[in-house]
Amino acid sequence: MRTYKVTGMTCGGCEKSVTRAIKKQLGDDTTVEADSKTGEVRVDASADPQMVVFAIDGAGYKVEEVKD
Amino acid sequence: MRTYKVTGMTCGGCEKSVTRAIKKQLGDDTTVEADSKTGEVRVDASADPQMVVFAIDGAGYKVEEVKD
Repeated sequence: MRTYKVTGMTCGGCEKSVTRAIKKQLGDDTTVEADSKTGEVRVDASADPQMVVFAIDGAGYKVEEVKD
Repeated sequence: MRTYKVTGMTCGGCEKSVTRAIKKQLGDDTTVEADSKTGEVRVDASADPQMVVFAIDGAGYKVEEVKD
């Protein structure tokens, strides 16, 4: 899994929104774990980070950092 | 303004997310008012409804109804 530091997620609805946006972009079988408390989104390491950042950005949240 | 009934917005973060996603798609000068309490998003009537629905959907929220 790769970890994306994301700002702007403040509730469970935000977590779901980010999760759905990523799955829509990269496929429903992509593993996504979004946590609004830590501000971290963990995604399959096999998912193209550029596509993931694009999806999160398109959902209206900001990616601060990508950690392998 | 045109009103979009949207499910899934549960906090201010969700409102911001939807607002940003629409502005990103349709331009920063688009007027957008998202209200998680009523589940309504109001957008400039001049904005193409198909584009607005696409943006909301891409942000991970579901449009139930569009009212003129």
